[in-house]
Amino acid sequence: MQQRTPPGSLRSPPSPLRGEGFSREEWLLDPEVAFLNHGSFGATPRAVLAEQERWRTLMERRPTHFMDRELPSALRGAAARLAAFVGARAEDLVFVENATAGCNTVLRSLSFAPGDEILVTDHGYPAVRKAAEYVAARAGAHVVEAPVPFPLADAAQVVAAVSSVLTPRTRLAIFDHITSPTAVIFPVSELAALCRAAGVPMLIDGAHAPGMLSLDVPSIGADWYTGNCHKWLMAPKGSAFLWTAPERQADTHPLVISHGFGQGFTAEFAWVGTRDPSAWLSVPAAIDFHVRLGGARLRERNAVLARWSSQRCSPVPGKPSAARLTPSPAPWRRCGCRCANRRPRSAPWRCAASYSTITASKYR
Amino acid sequence: MQQRTPPGSLRSPPSPLRGEGFSREEWLLDPEVAFLNHGSFGATPRAVLAEQERWRTLMERRPTHFMDRELPSALRGAAARLAAFVGARAEDLVFVENATAGCNTVLRSLSFAPGDEILVTDHGYPAVRKAAEYVAARAGAHVVEAPVPFPLADAAQVVAAVSSVLTPRTRLAIFDHITSPTAVIFPVSELAALCRAAGVPMLIDGAHAPGMLSLDVPSIGADWYTGNCHKWLMAPKGSAFLWTAPERQADTHPLVISHGFGQGFTAEFAWVGTRDPSAWLSVPAAIDFHVRLGGARLRERNAVLARWSSQRCSPVPGKPSAARLTPSPAPWRRCGCRCANRRPRSAPWRCAASYSTITASKYR
Repeated sequence: MQQRTPPGSLRSPPSPLRGEGFSREEWLLDPEVAFLNHGSFGATPRAVLAEQERWRTLMERRPTHFMDRELPSALRGAAARLAAFVGARAEDLVFVENATAGCNTVLRSLSFAPGDEILVTDHGYPAVRKAAEYVAARAGAHVVEAPVPFPLADAAQVVAAVSSVLTPRTRLAIFDHITSPTAVIFPVSELAALCRAAGVPMLIDGAHAPGMLSLDVPSIGADWYTGNCHKWLMAPKGSAFLWTAPERQADTHPLVISHGFGQGFTAEFAWVGTRDPSAWLSVPAAIDFHVRLGGARLRERNAVLARWSSQRCSPVPGKPSAARLTPSPAPWRRCGCRCANRRPRSAPWRCAASYSTITASKYR
Repeated sequence: MQQRTPPGSLRSPPSPLRGEGFSREEWLLDPEVAFLNHGSFGATPRAVLAEQERWRTLMERRPTHFMDRELPSALRGAAARLAAFVGARAEDLVFVENATAGCNTVLRSLSFAPGDEILVTDHGYPAVRKAAEYVAARAGAHVVEAPVPFPLADAAQVVAAVSSVLTPRTRLAIFDHITSPTAVIFPVSELAALCRAAGVPMLIDGAHAPGMLSLDVPSIGADWYTGNCHKWLMAPKGSAFLWTAPERQADTHPLVISHGFGQGFTAEFAWVGTRDPSAWLSVPAAIDFHVRLGGARLRERNAVLARWSSQRCSPVPGKPSAARLTPSPAPWRRCGCRCANRRPRSAPWRCAASYSTITASKYR
């Protein structure tokens, strides 16, 4: 009997992009390590680290002058560049330390009452779920979980799963853009339409999206969108953003209330006490590097390479296999750059199932 | 008529410490800048920045391995060193980004009800007051201000001012250890005794204390104590701590709820999403540097030098002069390393009235 090729399967890996002079030496990575896990922590290129060092040196040469006179405009300049990269207006985007902090920011800005519900899915990031449960418990509210099938047959299953647990008591819905445990790209625009129709504010946890997907954040129709720059975009650790729809900005406040409170959305987030802002200021350099690597072509190739790789993964006994996750290039079941097996909740960051095409395998 | 010397005045500056080979080159400071303002942002010595760079390189060489396997114990090692420096047990101390974040952490961990009161003084840090007002307003609670005289005649005035606004509705009292706008060392042990007797939890904002005062945090009797390492201790920006009395730890949670939630005090604060932990890990190097500079002898000399300097400051018309602040070496009215005039609340970090003896004037 003839061996059948599954639909959407790939017989060979995608062709390498032209690597305009890139080599492994672009990164500080240990030569002994094949680094496959930008999904946990991106490896930051030397060029981006050098830019970060430049900012730090400026800061240390004249600390007070830098913080007081140079930082505010530099920060907005970096935010503007990142905003353009994700299709947003600069005035709607602020820096946060990571997407978990972005989600906590929204959760702690809102007020919940006894009986209120926060909607999540069983594909969500465990840390964010803990944050939702913490905030809910303090208010006598509840976290309600939408059970989304896995593997998925089509995008409508996600919308149906969420719809089945939406109630008049739902006060916030939180969805991963690319689900952390299962690497599925959720149909965020359809979910936004559903939530809008129900009058439910929606937060998208786009932890894995920047540098993996081509983003046009405002077009999604979410109320908030947070994303990490230190995973697939390889910016320095601690660089992430929180985009907030204009009508939600007056009620969205940083976790650290400081001098800027009451002075407007971007002013509140611009100063959250003394910190090293160099990671945020180096995001433009990370975008430059990403563009030099290929930008949209790189993102597309990574997705294809992830599918190709996942078809060659050995399934973990008793777990849905990565191959079953990615039989088709349809966006709602294509994993981005990851080939994931469902992982135990207790140690979500220990699994190195993510697949980076960039540092470890392509440019040697 | 003979010119009288005010009591406690100094005729000459204190003798320099022996500067064991130190020079201005120990810092990255611009040679054109006389840096007088460690009270806003400490200038970090090259030796400490080199240690930070060493940690960053370790992180970038094996990102996942570092974060997962090396960071947890490294972080507790750094915390243990800092805890010893401030007289505390390691298990009672966690890192936060800055003292404002530390205060927000406590404020947001507590639950307030309508009618509750948060007690502050009019010598408190404006950003922390804003945080208290934000938290209070969300709960229908109120911030009550104790009017502390300025200049002070004696420590009892501080205790009396606080006592006059303590009520059965007071749920939290927040005091600066060294007051930010007025550079007074508050009698924190006496205030703690007062609050304990009244059953009121007390948070000390020790933003300026580490590296300026010799600390034995547990002996104060506070419930929480937060302090910055990036001011007078000159650790990298974004390094601070929150000490929490054992009986308060179960109810004290980080601003970013993440994987560690529910796993104990230090575990919760050890992982608050991906961030650059190198500033925290370099605090031991900053302590080493501080000790090399003289440690307790340096702190004492700085205090004397600040008094001497303040007596030579020109008073700002209409403001209590710095000289009036420091006629005596009594701890409750000795400014630490600062000679401050009362500053407008709107821009508390713009005033460069602080006086650093370390980088700019002593070691050339």
